[in-house]
Amino acid sequence: MMRFIRRLLIGRPLHNHEMSHEKIPKWQALATFSSDALSSVAYGPEQIMLTLAIPGLLAYGYLGPVAIAILILLAVVTVSYVQVARANPGGGGSYSVAIHNLGEFPALTAAAALFADYTLTVAVSVSAGTAAIISAFPELIPYEVHIDLVVLFFVLMLVNLRGVRDSSKIFVYPTYAFILGIFALVGFGFYNALIGNVPVIPPESLAKQQLDWSLFFVLLRAFANGCSSMTGIEAISNGVPMFKEPQIKNAAHTTYYMSGMLGVMFIGISFLIIHFHILPEENVTALSVVAENILGRGFMYYYIQFTTMLVLYLAANTAYNGLPPLLSILAKDGYMPRYLGSRGERLNFSNGIILLSVFAALLIVIFQGDTEHLISLYAIGVFLSFTIAQSGMVVHWVKEKGAWWHSRAILNGFGAVVTGIVVLIIAITKFFYGAWMVLVFIPIMIKIFKAIRSHYNDMAEQLSLSNGRFEEILALPRATNLVVVPIASPTRVVAETLRYARSLSENVIALHITTNEEEGKKTEEKWASWNPGVELVTVYSPYRLVIQPVLDFISELEIHKCNYDYITVIIPEFETKKWWHLLLHNQTGWILRTLLILKENVVVTTIPYHLRK
Amino acid sequence: MMRFIRRLLIGRPLHNHEMSHEKIPKWQALATFSSDALSSVAYGPEQIMLTLAIPGLLAYGYLGPVAIAILILLAVVTVSYVQVARANPGGGGSYSVAIHNLGEFPALTAAAALFADYTLTVAVSVSAGTAAIISAFPELIPYEVHIDLVVLFFVLMLVNLRGVRDSSKIFVYPTYAFILGIFALVGFGFYNALIGNVPVIPPESLAKQQLDWSLFFVLLRAFANGCSSMTGIEAISNGVPMFKEPQIKNAAHTTYYMSGMLGVMFIGISFLIIHFHILPEENVTALSVVAENILGRGFMYYYIQFTTMLVLYLAANTAYNGLPPLLSILAKDGYMPRYLGSRGERLNFSNGIILLSVFAALLIVIFQGDTEHLISLYAIGVFLSFTIAQSGMVVHWVKEKGAWWHSRAILNGFGAVVTGIVVLIIAITKFFYGAWMVLVFIPIMIKIFKAIRSHYNDMAEQLSLSNGRFEEILALPRATNLVVVPIASPTRVVAETLRYARSLSENVIALHITTNEEEGKKTEEKWASWNPGVELVTVYSPYRLVIQPVLDFISELEIHKCNYDYITVIIPEFETKKWWHLLLHNQTGWILRTLLILKENVVVTTIPYHLRK
Repeated sequence: MMRFIRRLLIGRPLHNHEMSHEKIPKWQALATFSSDALSSVAYGPEQIMLTLAIPGLLAYGYLGPVAIAILILLAVVTVSYVQVARANPGGGGSYSVAIHNLGEFPALTAAAALFADYTLTVAVSVSAGTAAIISAFPELIPYEVHIDLVVLFFVLMLVNLRGVRDSSKIFVYPTYAFILGIFALVGFGFYNALIGNVPVIPPESLAKQQLDWSLFFVLLRAFANGCSSMTGIEAISNGVPMFKEPQIKNAAHTTYYMSGMLGVMFIGISFLIIHFHILPEENVTALSVVAENILGRGFMYYYIQFTTMLVLYLAANTAYNGLPPLLSILAKDGYMPRYLGSRGERLNFSNGIILLSVFAALLIVIFQGDTEHLISLYAIGVFLSFTIAQSGMVVHWVKEKGAWWHSRAILNGFGAVVTGIVVLIIAITKFFYGAWMVLVFIPIMIKIFKAIRSHYNDMAEQLSLSNGRFEEILALPRATNLVVVPIASPTRVVAETLRYARSLSENVIALHITTNEEEGKKTEEKWASWNPGVELVTVYSPYRLVIQPVLDFISELEIHKCNYDYITVIIPEFETKKWWHLLLHNQTGWILRTLLILKENVVVTTIPYHLRK
Repeated sequence: MMRFIRRLLIGRPLHNHEMSHEKIPKWQALATFSSDALSSVAYGPEQIMLTLAIPGLLAYGYLGPVAIAILILLAVVTVSYVQVARANPGGGGSYSVAIHNLGEFPALTAAAALFADYTLTVAVSVSAGTAAIISAFPELIPYEVHIDLVVLFFVLMLVNLRGVRDSSKIFVYPTYAFILGIFALVGFGFYNALIGNVPVIPPESLAKQQLDWSLFFVLLRAFANGCSSMTGIEAISNGVPMFKEPQIKNAAHTTYYMSGMLGVMFIGISFLIIHFHILPEENVTALSVVAENILGRGFMYYYIQFTTMLVLYLAANTAYNGLPPLLSILAKDGYMPRYLGSRGERLNFSNGIILLSVFAALLIVIFQGDTEHLISLYAIGVFLSFTIAQSGMVVHWVKEKGAWWHSRAILNGFGAVVTGIVVLIIAITKFFYGAWMVLVFIPIMIKIFKAIRSHYNDMAEQLSLSNGRFEEILALPRATNLVVVPIASPTRVVAETLRYARSLSENVIALHITTNEEEGKKTEEKWASWNPGVELVTVYSPYRLVIQPVLDFISELEIHKCNYDYITVIIPEFETKKWWHLLLHNQTGWILRTLLILKENVVVTTIPYHLRK
């Protein structure tokens, strides 16, 4: 039954041989890798506006300069990342670059930052996607978080647990549809602006305030907010192996196309926000307000909202292609639990997929799907991993000393410095707005990585075995074993358990804990009359405890045993026909097992007794 | 460490011999058993007023008649319950009366109703106690539910887990202090009313509306609401064994005293509410408004609020003396899980105490500590159990045919009819206000009782064992046992597990699941070179599953084994030094154990391997 539902939802298991090594052409790669980056325009310009619109509108006039600063930053990061793609044709993101070139600490920092980012990508993109559709249909407002969670678990998680493989072509169309829509919007918008088909903005509100320090700080924060438009730009350099030959050239071109489009869309929407003097509205995205202003509530408006939603959900999907493989690399390096390292029955990293979904869901629930607050956490990790990747590239070029290595190192060095400054700007200006959470999370995560690695190292050491030792242990004389069977009252189960016990060892003790001295004596008399050939030890427990006296008895045996290698305690367990019957049985057995297993050389054996009804 | 905290909070375990059989004098019994009943005046009159004040004040004038109707009902119920005490000197509430006189179904109905009532008593009394103190200190309003939960878990639950024993005298003083306060309030109030020291009530609002059907319905609902004043009146008849000789006479007198005081306090407060024309106020109890009107915000006002709070928390405490013993009786009769039947280390029914606290907490959280809504659920169960107890008494007198049995049967019969009518009134008039929940809960609970009983019966049948069978099973030839050790890679743990396995049986198989054919072959070669004297079976799992191939292998063994009685699967488990290390290990082992134990004749053995760091 369970298996049928599983098959229905996730599909049949895939054979090792079915691993796909498909290559995809540029036009497809562009859509596949760029949905994260391009979809950022759905919230990036709005984030700048949100900051500047707050202090009495006086800073609103700086929206343009801030947008241009971000456009320049985009160019720097793009050029830097083309270099990353060039140097790492095997793919692999900041973590791989850092572990090969910079060492453990920067690599783990990058890994922690990426962990935070991918989770936030899912949370932000899903929330923003839902925000797009809610802007069009305000009656959905009360269900915002519910929609987020349904999309997260029943679309993203399930689709990724099935695995994407050949279906990845399906993802191409929404991305192009979105690009088309935004270009049309920007085009119409410019046309309308040119023919003056819009209300003129009151000039006083565009007046720039005198640039004092507090305003400067606001501008920096607006810049930091706007940097969220640049998230996802590294995706192509991580996916180089999927490109057709010539891989590096194709990847580089695709990166340029993507950045170019991102830049045009970003600056276009920013211009429209300024020109139409869009201000923050509750429960409606800025993009929706812009679209409604220019296009009215017609087909095109709904087309834009709908494709925006789709491309944002797709952007969330790219994180599913990012984090699980990263966790798997970390698991293989010993920094994460082993079960994140192996591929599931559909050849994907199913545990990582579930983990990512759960974490993203937590973020969405905690922040109640509020995009603005989630984005506050977002950009710092992204730019931290940018900085680490660029720094790693500098080391790479210096080590390799290939053609043009001087200029390449300088280029990446410049990228590292610029993105490093951005990290500082974000950390300072948005510290109290949520950046502190990421700054707390990253060191904790690094600590966890290291603790896991050190535990696995300790363990490998303890388990290590030279050929000699293995044979030595097995050459020891046959292990001796004392079997203890705790019994409540002599039933058929006890008889069968004793029969099993006697098949294990000649030395069997039945242990009876009684909370009532008289009943204990009666049981002893019965036992004697049955003469089952097994010694019965009765322990009176005046405090009515059952588990503690068993533990004490075993401890005493442990101290006095000397001549036994193992004590085996046999605990019967009832296997019931209905699940809720379990609530009526076995509690004592479960607790006993959990506590007994903590003792040295005590083996716990569970013998099932299947109830027929 | 855990044990130290436990000792500190709950105290040392108590010996079987320390069971208390103390008898208490009347003046002490009155306070001990009556806090629940008497404290009802803190919310009962208010409940009538809340209903009557709503429809445009026109029904308010009927507050007096409704209060008098309740007073008459109180007299009937009191006389009936004195009879219950007389007939059941061994104590025991509606459930005991019904199981002896009426049969299973009415008894279980009473048990379900009592279950609901006791839980509601705790929830209502704690909420009302907090409401009393919040009325005096409005700055506590935002913390209402928090205070409820702290009182519930850190006072009531802990005190009851410790057990009350000799400290029960402490409970006497707050009850008398409360009685004193209310009598003083009523006295001052009457005095003030007599000397006309109060604003006269506008006569138009006291005008009685013409009695049409809709008003009649409102009056019935007011009556149903007011019946909450009568909750707890059965407590004395349940506690007869604790009275000093002559037990029955003392218990009867105490019941009369209690009802008398309850009646005076109830009618007194109702009068004051009418006279001062008190109307509902948000976050302030009616009793608080009355007290403030009469006494001002002086010492006496705070005295009344504080003693009201104390006596209400004490009333909640009486449910802790009621439900856990009832659950224990039900468990002994097989209607509840066994672990609710036995006394814990402090000689009380600790599992029942925890269960009651958790359920009451759920009610408080769901209803956000809103007394009014909780009381809506309350009275129906109380009166249902009244009716069942009275009916049981009728059967009892008819069966016994002792002195005066005719009049006694008629008396209880009258009580049964009256309380039965009240049940109908409450069920109809308050159906949509919450009575439906109780009416749904009771049949579900009866179904659960019966299902548990029937499962225990089935089980006893399956386990039953004549003397012959026990010996027969043990006389069978020695059981044969095939031991299977699943191994991942040959480590020290595997060597030690194999050594243990060989001590159990001559027939040991090592089972290796490989997800990679080449690695599997390497392991086989290694194994052959070590020659450990145990057969290695390698299974290639192309779908990368590990658990399923083990299960399949065991299933195939089961089918082909024929000559083995048992298959024992030995699974090593790592016992780690730090708790979180557990998250890094054993998952496969845990799942494997859970699934293997479901198979017939498969025994699962856990051998611990203790990591040193």
